Amino acid sequence: MRCVVLGGCGFIGSHVVDRLVGAGHSVRVVSRRPEALRGPVKGVEYRFLDYGNRASFAATIAGADVVFHMISATTPASGDQNPMLDIEGNLAATVGLLDLMEQAGIRRLVYVSSGGVVYGTPQELPIPETHPLRPINSYGIVKVAIESYIDLSARTKGLMPVILRPANVYGTRLGREGHEFLVSRLLRSALLGQPVSIWGDGSIVRDYLHVNDLARLAVLAAESGITGTFNAGSGTGVSVRALIDLVSEVSGRSLVVDYGSPRACDVPVSILDCTRARDVFGWMPEVALREGLAQTWAWHLATRNETTLPGAIPDRASVTASGDHIPSDAL
Amino acid sequence: MRCVVLGGCGFIGSHVVDRLVGAGHSVRVVSRRPEALRGPVKGVEYRFLDYGNRASFAATIAGADVVFHMISATTPASGDQNPMLDIEGNLAATVGLLDLMEQAGIRRLVYVSSGGVVYGTPQELPIPETHPLRPINSYGIVKVAIESYIDLSARTKGLMPVILRPANVYGTRLGREGHEFLVSRLLRSALLGQPVSIWGDGSIVRDYLHVNDLARLAVLAAESGITGTFNAGSGTGVSVRALIDLVSEVSGRSLVVDYGSPRACDVPVSILDCTRARDVFGWMPEVALREGLAQTWAWHLATRNETTLPGAIPDRASVTASGDHIPSDAL
Repeated sequence: MRCVVLGGCGFIGSHVVDRLVGAGHSVRVVSRRPEALRGPVKGVEYRFLDYGNRASFAATIAGADVVFHMISATTPASGDQNPMLDIEGNLAATVGLLDLMEQAGIRRLVYVSSGGVVYGTPQELPIPETHPLRPINSYGIVKVAIESYIDLSARTKGLMPVILRPANVYGTRLGREGHEFLVSRLLRSALLGQPVSIWGDGSIVRDYLHVNDLARLAVLAAESGITGTFNAGSGTGVSVRALIDLVSEVSGRSLVVDYGSPRACDVPVSILDCTRARDVFGWMPEVALREGLAQTWAWHLATRNETTLPGAIPDRASVTASGDHIPSDAL
Repeated sequence: MRCVVLGGCGFIGSHVVDRLVGAGHSVRVVSRRPEALRGPVKGVEYRFLDYGNRASFAATIAGADVVFHMISATTPASGDQNPMLDIEGNLAATVGLLDLMEQAGIRRLVYVSSGGVVYGTPQELPIPETHPLRPINSYGIVKVAIESYIDLSARTKGLMPVILRPANVYGTRLGREGHEFLVSRLLRSALLGQPVSIWGDGSIVRDYLHVNDLARLAVLAAESGITGTFNAGSGTGVSVRALIDLVSEVSGRSLVVDYGSPRACDVPVSILDCTRARDVFGWMPEVALREGLAQTWAWHLATRNETTLPGAIPDRASVTASGDHIPSDAL
């Protein structure tokens, strides 16, 4: 396949690129800037540009069989601070992309939505794809609207999309720039011997998925020709306290944790029902949480002295944002 | 109450203004332009402006106890033609309004959403407010997103909103400018002796509500101090063919109808369950469809020679747009 990966230098995007290259596909990455911690991947074509330039953007997707859309201008935390950026930078930008794809005759799209925010407070657990969509933050409101526009294009304009709704994604290449994602903040705190502040009392439960498993599903989905919407998680809930214990275990270091008041944008529990992806693609997560944390810890250790881009470090690690799929790239 | 009515020169807005004035409330209308077919209402303050001017806009809501938001930049038909206008002119503009209201300390908002588009294809009839929101056109996608942002402000910023989801609203002051709303197109065709073109075979079923009943509910809701989301319809389904027969009956003129192919954005049936509004506000529609059509027919007859603003007349009358609440004003 000729693949265009929007946000291919970001967290999830870069892992999808690795997987595509490994499978022998042709890959063009579209990004605002190069990856922070490694050079260009051999055989990959890179196009660096400001996404706001519509003509340049159109040229980057020309000739593609499939477009992977793995860009976000916001995180769940930053979206509530600046909903206009969600609306302009994510929603309007994606609707513009759908229009460009229609004009270019490109029908395959793999979009990374979010299983952590589109459902809001779950009415059943684990959460199936048919669960009502009742997002409780700006980031989720816009993800739902984007999914709806993608569905509209599928119904009326021949688009053949796959929408993935990942759980809290974690893994290498995330969290060195100061993002608030929980797993990387915990590992980073262990590495630097710094205390970590947490929203809430640690009882919040999430479903953690290793980025390699998500990248594998994204490529499987693109290769399949199947369309639809799919949860992507482990199906298992882990509390923040249990996660902290696991991080201490794999790192061999104890963590000093400062628990704070909870946030309105955090649902108490989120666990995804992923039987649809299993039934349709034969996909199941292969990386167990302990193993994935150990691998990610090893990466933090190995890259500890490498220079990264500067980034503002938020006061508290966020469980909603934690390991959510936000790439470090932005539209 | 000191009331600000955004879009108060539009279809629904102007009827809300009448009701507020009748009840002795102080009313300021914010609009892009005066009403097309009547002069200013006595005792009402008018502010005409371009909504894009944020500072001017902020000044117009200063001092209000309640803001009625009855503006739309699009119709269901025009939204699919230009989704960016939905996103910028409706969604971003409303999120901006919420921000201005928060800064001004105004907590009461009455927002007119749409019971005809937010639910998509009904899974049960009549449709309760708890029905999943699965809009199938751009107009509906953006209405859902706006409702979600209003709910978010209610949860996190003290907003006390009422969201109304009206059925297909019809009545006087609609349809003279060439909009495609079904009831007024049928009456207009009867008046002018022109044939009327319909999307689909006439089997589509809708729930029709007279604008006076909606205006009464909007004012009741504002006066109540209650917050929540409420359907507003008759609870009765009427097919397009039955509506055409009724229009022939009340006008005493036979209609020549050209039935065409159906549209993807039209759901086959929409009837709203309005027991919540009845239980909470004691509200029930008072204007029966035949009576409301006769009154609206009389208005078309009486105003037939009055000059109106020019407007493009679409080829076909649309049942989705028909009597939907779209005011002729736009943000």
